[in-house]
Amino acid sequence: MKEIPVGLLGFGTIGVGVARVLLDDGKLITRRVGAKIKLAGVADIRRGPRKGVKLPKGVFTTDALSVVDDPSIPIIIELIGGKTVAKKLVRRALERGKHVVTANKALLATYGDQLFRLASRKGVNLAFEAAVGGAIPIIRSLREAFVATQMTSIFAIINGTSNYILTEMTQRGTDYREVLAEAKKLGYAEADPTFDVDGTDAAHKLAILVMMAFGAPVTFSRIHRDGITGISPLDMAFAHEFGYRIKLLAIAKGDTSSIEARVHPTLIPKDHPLAGVEGVLNAVYLKGKPLGESMLVGHGAGMMPTAGAVVADVVEIARDIIAGCAPHRAPMRAWPEKSFRPISIRDIRERSGPYYMRIAVIDRPGVLSRISGILGAHRISIAQVIQKDRQVDGAVPIFLLTHEAVEKDLLAAVRKIDRLSMVKGKTAFLRIEE
Amino acid sequence: MKEIPVGLLGFGTIGVGVARVLLDDGKLITRRVGAKIKLAGVADIRRGPRKGVKLPKGVFTTDALSVVDDPSIPIIIELIGGKTVAKKLVRRALERGKHVVTANKALLATYGDQLFRLASRKGVNLAFEAAVGGAIPIIRSLREAFVATQMTSIFAIINGTSNYILTEMTQRGTDYREVLAEAKKLGYAEADPTFDVDGTDAAHKLAILVMMAFGAPVTFSRIHRDGITGISPLDMAFAHEFGYRIKLLAIAKGDTSSIEARVHPTLIPKDHPLAGVEGVLNAVYLKGKPLGESMLVGHGAGMMPTAGAVVADVVEIARDIIAGCAPHRAPMRAWPEKSFRPISIRDIRERSGPYYMRIAVIDRPGVLSRISGILGAHRISIAQVIQKDRQVDGAVPIFLLTHEAVEKDLLAAVRKIDRLSMVKGKTAFLRIEE
Repeated sequence: MKEIPVGLLGFGTIGVGVARVLLDDGKLITRRVGAKIKLAGVADIRRGPRKGVKLPKGVFTTDALSVVDDPSIPIIIELIGGKTVAKKLVRRALERGKHVVTANKALLATYGDQLFRLASRKGVNLAFEAAVGGAIPIIRSLREAFVATQMTSIFAIINGTSNYILTEMTQRGTDYREVLAEAKKLGYAEADPTFDVDGTDAAHKLAILVMMAFGAPVTFSRIHRDGITGISPLDMAFAHEFGYRIKLLAIAKGDTSSIEARVHPTLIPKDHPLAGVEGVLNAVYLKGKPLGESMLVGHGAGMMPTAGAVVADVVEIARDIIAGCAPHRAPMRAWPEKSFRPISIRDIRERSGPYYMRIAVIDRPGVLSRISGILGAHRISIAQVIQKDRQVDGAVPIFLLTHEAVEKDLLAAVRKIDRLSMVKGKTAFLRIEE
Repeated sequence: MKEIPVGLLGFGTIGVGVARVLLDDGKLITRRVGAKIKLAGVADIRRGPRKGVKLPKGVFTTDALSVVDDPSIPIIIELIGGKTVAKKLVRRALERGKHVVTANKALLATYGDQLFRLASRKGVNLAFEAAVGGAIPIIRSLREAFVATQMTSIFAIINGTSNYILTEMTQRGTDYREVLAEAKKLGYAEADPTFDVDGTDAAHKLAILVMMAFGAPVTFSRIHRDGITGISPLDMAFAHEFGYRIKLLAIAKGDTSSIEARVHPTLIPKDHPLAGVEGVLNAVYLKGKPLGESMLVGHGAGMMPTAGAVVADVVEIARDIIAGCAPHRAPMRAWPEKSFRPISIRDIRERSGPYYMRIAVIDRPGVLSRISGILGAHRISIAQVIQKDRQVDGAVPIFLLTHEAVEKDLLAAVRKIDRLSMVKGKTAFLRIEE
């Protein structure tokens, strides 16, 4: 029986999951692969046993380089996270002609282009199914199943923490802060959840999806992102009343020459397939030709589901090794490296679509007429309006849905509205996608 | 630029779609594959032009053998359908050492085992993504993404015609026959829809899913199937009232030693992810370790989505050819041929779970007590009961939900209930899955 040794860098939650899959389910994997995937080295700066797994003797080390540089190990799994040590070790492994499997979306969204080019030159694979949507087979599907499809749009729920928070806020009418505190207790939010709730993590993943779907390298810093911290239970309740749900969506639309790419809380109709994706589940909803529409749903995080995706990448590389395939049988990022072309990202100020607005006003005659006058002057027409008589901080909220409008017009109108003496605080708005 | 010639057998709807993808989107595919997939031969018994596509000169023939036997063509696409000519030509192509791509679920569900063994001996691939769930990448995902997962259950909506009919019946409260007539007009049901509405088509596909998920050959004739023809608007309305939806589900549960495998209309809770899969969409919902839960949704049929899946299989084989991989880099049916093991299929009479029952009774005192007495004597306890006073054919319907019960007990109880003088007609029952 052929053995394929693998080295594991980072023995935290996912690392322990990977070790458990390889050690506990080794027989299943060996039966399916026709070779044994052997955990030959595990490196972490923290010593000591980990719950739920017992490594074979001599496998653990605190010296990551001894694993990366071991000439008998052809596949390195990077689960350290972050962009410093991880980057150094991934580069080193690739330089030494080793295949790398990683779940590190921040690393790929920031330095992906140079790392994929390096892997390409060295004739090795850099695989990353677990980096986007955890156990959802979206990376593989974009590379293989959807190879004949020209994507036109991607809508994705790819941050479990924010989806959990929004789901709880919707179902229980609770406040953002209250749900966040609970999510931390339950382990669904990290101690510092900034990157999850401000859209950064989703933007990292969207950069990777865009790269795969449109054949273009996109640095995540060019992706517009708004977080969920400003969503109030009022927004939730009125979205509900209008027949919508609020989800933090990563959105890309366009073709291989220019796209929109943005992450923000979005109103979607309650019968949209993504509206029912609740809690910590993730989902990617795609449209394209000839595909039509497709949606993939699953666990976006969590020790065992993510570990399963990491091991699937290891198996794929092992199968290429066993079958003696030339490097990059299937292109790492869905398009051959030499066919990657720059893509222009449209300014979000040019975004066109309907909007939801919440304006806090002092209830006096003529206020709605003033507001609709300003909107009209900016080519924005009102589709629906609801005014409630419930006072919040001495003002009443007006809720508006607009017809299709251009974002820069909306921004200009909001600036003028917020200068009215009868308007209190800042007007909140959210984008609607149908 | 390297060229990979392909031959196409069957120039009907999907065949035309494949030709359109290869001819119209050829540049996209060439860019992604790094080689040109060339449509070298197209065979059909029916001559004449097809709408929406113009074949290059000299490509069309009525002589399928001239395509299958052409030594310059390494990949044959079979889209003839049926189990006679298609089987003969697929066998012949495999015998001649050609890779075959097919969308023919009936062929694979019936003769798959011998065909895969032949392909295995000949060192060629038999690929079939489009055979189950059309554009949904379920076959590929079972083979690659979920390679480390031991599946525990599969619930699938894999017949678009019946899902369309049930969706329309639910949403509009219409009768089965009325909706079927409409579906035929709209092209969502064939002139003879028997195999779609009686569960045969879904059972074909389930046989393939079981083979992939559990590593066992399963002949479809061993799969229990009930169709949707007996579902009445009354069932729909009351399922709704109890918080359920009725879907024709293909279900497999178990492990690599024994499974349940069945196709039948099923009550599922209205917040189950499959409950929202409406119209002609298909979906496969999976559970396993370490995967957790996952669902893949998309077009299960239709010219262009299905054609996209066929072309993805062609590309995968082309990539293996270009990279010079040894045969069967990834096992055709997810597990290496030599690792396939028989699996025992549990008798549906041993199925255990809750049931829905509809009993037509003459409304007189004591009827419910007689019925519940019979159920109790067969170890069946009632969870909920609703009796309506609306008369249908001189009787009133009683609707029951049971707690967990064993099917053979239920069948025995139903036989006794149907013998009661106060019971009219045959008692209908449906399985509930939570």
